[in-house]
Amino acid sequence: MNYSDWIKKEFWNLSQSLGFHFVPGEEIENRIKRIRERMARQGIEAILVIEKMDFYYLSGTTQEGFLFLPLEGKPLLLIKRELERAKIESPLKPVIPLQSIRHLPLLIQDHYRTLPQNLGLEFDLLPVRDYFRYQDLFSGTVLLDSSAVFREVRKIKSPFEMELMKKAGEIARKVYEEAKGMIQEGMTEIELGGLLEAVAKKYGHEGLLRVRSLNYEAYSWHILSGSSGGVVSQSDSPMGGFGLSPAFPVGASLKKIKAREPILVDFGICYHGYQVDQTRMFSIGRMKKRFIDAYKASKEIHDSVLDEVHPGTDCEALFKKTVRLAKKLGYGDSYLGPPRLQTRFVGHGIGLELNELPFLAQGHSYPLEEGMTFAIEPKIVFPGEGAVGFENTVAVTQSGYEILTPIEQAIFQV
Amino acid sequence: MNYSDWIKKEFWNLSQSLGFHFVPGEEIENRIKRIRERMARQGIEAILVIEKMDFYYLSGTTQEGFLFLPLEGKPLLLIKRELERAKIESPLKPVIPLQSIRHLPLLIQDHYRTLPQNLGLEFDLLPVRDYFRYQDLFSGTVLLDSSAVFREVRKIKSPFEMELMKKAGEIARKVYEEAKGMIQEGMTEIELGGLLEAVAKKYGHEGLLRVRSLNYEAYSWHILSGSSGGVVSQSDSPMGGFGLSPAFPVGASLKKIKAREPILVDFGICYHGYQVDQTRMFSIGRMKKRFIDAYKASKEIHDSVLDEVHPGTDCEALFKKTVRLAKKLGYGDSYLGPPRLQTRFVGHGIGLELNELPFLAQGHSYPLEEGMTFAIEPKIVFPGEGAVGFENTVAVTQSGYEILTPIEQAIFQV
Repeated sequence: MNYSDWIKKEFWNLSQSLGFHFVPGEEIENRIKRIRERMARQGIEAILVIEKMDFYYLSGTTQEGFLFLPLEGKPLLLIKRELERAKIESPLKPVIPLQSIRHLPLLIQDHYRTLPQNLGLEFDLLPVRDYFRYQDLFSGTVLLDSSAVFREVRKIKSPFEMELMKKAGEIARKVYEEAKGMIQEGMTEIELGGLLEAVAKKYGHEGLLRVRSLNYEAYSWHILSGSSGGVVSQSDSPMGGFGLSPAFPVGASLKKIKAREPILVDFGICYHGYQVDQTRMFSIGRMKKRFIDAYKASKEIHDSVLDEVHPGTDCEALFKKTVRLAKKLGYGDSYLGPPRLQTRFVGHGIGLELNELPFLAQGHSYPLEEGMTFAIEPKIVFPGEGAVGFENTVAVTQSGYEILTPIEQAIFQV
Repeated sequence: MNYSDWIKKEFWNLSQSLGFHFVPGEEIENRIKRIRERMARQGIEAILVIEKMDFYYLSGTTQEGFLFLPLEGKPLLLIKRELERAKIESPLKPVIPLQSIRHLPLLIQDHYRTLPQNLGLEFDLLPVRDYFRYQDLFSGTVLLDSSAVFREVRKIKSPFEMELMKKAGEIARKVYEEAKGMIQEGMTEIELGGLLEAVAKKYGHEGLLRVRSLNYEAYSWHILSGSSGGVVSQSDSPMGGFGLSPAFPVGASLKKIKAREPILVDFGICYHGYQVDQTRMFSIGRMKKRFIDAYKASKEIHDSVLDEVHPGTDCEALFKKTVRLAKKLGYGDSYLGPPRLQTRFVGHGIGLELNELPFLAQGHSYPLEEGMTFAIEPKIVFPGEGAVGFENTVAVTQSGYEILTPIEQAIFQV
């Protein structure tokens, strides 16, 4: 059968039967409206959306292409591959084929009769080489940085987005439940990680987590048992673990899990691109009192943050409050890492990427707003011995919060 | 215990017991020598190595930091996090702490008494925003593109690198063997993918594949059964599959695997950062003759490439030869995708990243060289029905080739 005919005829039905949720037209309209408000405020006349998650956010598809969005008038979706699928996935119209980025200026000019005076691009990620190319292609146009526009708009989640995050949270809940029956003395951290990931994928976890950064990678499974939890690594995390090699130096390793060790299970789940993050402690038999106490402290710190999650609370103040509380509880030297390696955040915004706004962190003095979603993760690290933590992903509601990761709160002792 | 003391005392032993291979000093010396030859040829006085895999290649560590490499004299390894671990993983000396990239020029000037006239950066990936920052920081220095230096040097693998790729290939062999006992009618593609990935991880597969690109992501498991194999998606691949959502529109889906369907299992395995890529066909019961014939054709095309793998063969000519052969075998309209969506390559270089040189592709007229490693993947796609393929990763030897993925060659019929 002819490919285009088949896709036009079958793709919508097949993808629905496979559980796809397409982003509704109203949702996209509303996002574009909010993006345009920011563009206007920053004096940006048009943006060319390139980065995959910004592109998905505004178009509803991640087929390869570009979205040209002027301050007024219809946006133009230009698709390299695969056009027919993009037409079905995105509610935007028109969707036109793009053979080469060389044709971008001409296609835009044909469509709008003129090129913009200035054009926003995501400077936080756009490679220099591509930037030079766009300078040549749009030689009469000033190129500007549009990344703040996306960061600011994307930090507030819609009900549609929140639903997808709740579905991710529900997958997480199932995985932790099933983990109880899987964890065994003598299996390696990565072996357990692989099994849990298999469970998660069975329920629709997409496997790949996304971080907005050149070099920062996301690892599905931080399963750190005993001494692994005491190892710091390249990631901006209180602990990193051994990982599998110098090329993947964080997360689960080939270390065997022993009885009575603290086993920290911290991972991200992704559903339709939307992620949640959570941590619970496991142990085979009872772990030492020292670790149980640290778990209680971690949970107390987590809950003390929750108490103040509502619109208006200052993010930096919340972080500082946790540092004071950790000190008071006797964890001044182990809270968020070993001395001199302590991280400077207890929470990070999360959604399509793992490092969205807001950050509950040093230097991040701005208020919480309704619709923000973030992970709260107070961790306590004992070098050579282990790491302990408790973490949930939460949403800021009109008057307080909602937990998006409804996982049993106690230690998972098996 | 004090963190630094513990790492200094224990990390080397522990990481060895967990199977870490550190990059030997001689290996790094040789890589630096080859990089410098290219720098000299391009008139680059010094490079600042930023991109994670270039950084690992030249330093042996992926702890967060930078490598400053002048044309002459000792390189300088600057580490943000985590310093003690980097000192153990990298054979380079000196390794010095870096608090902020603001300090880079001063630290370099302190060390070498002067800043270079020009400085190479990886323009193919470095974000524009960072580029502007380096322009400010190194205001008297001309910034140049160093990415070609890395692409050219990294395309030739050393025996040390080849050994790691063979270990990845051995993991792949075990996974395909064990897959026979796992595949069942009625399980979803992603369920099977999760199980196979769990097996792979148990043997040391690192899970995350790497592609040198802003938006191109690697998916571990292309498990495409029946109609899934006929779906093209955003990736530059003959087929993409449904994936799990518009946000992850390629690879395994929630489609249930049926008996007698062609099941294409194409995935990458990563060991110590080094990847191999392979494809085999599975079926539950016998698949239709049409697909078996296509499998034979795919293998014949693969073997026809192998016949000419030795130093000196032109890459584009090899690609074109396969197009002619596919046509002759009756697959002109299905080879490498459906009409108008056919991809223009049958092989891609592979190593630390999935898109290295060489490409057996349209427009890539250059000779194969000893030490190159690449995947050969002739695929045949029938829209609405399925995809069929056969793929191995091979190395170019002095007089021919070596297959790095020693997996049984027949269809895995269960």
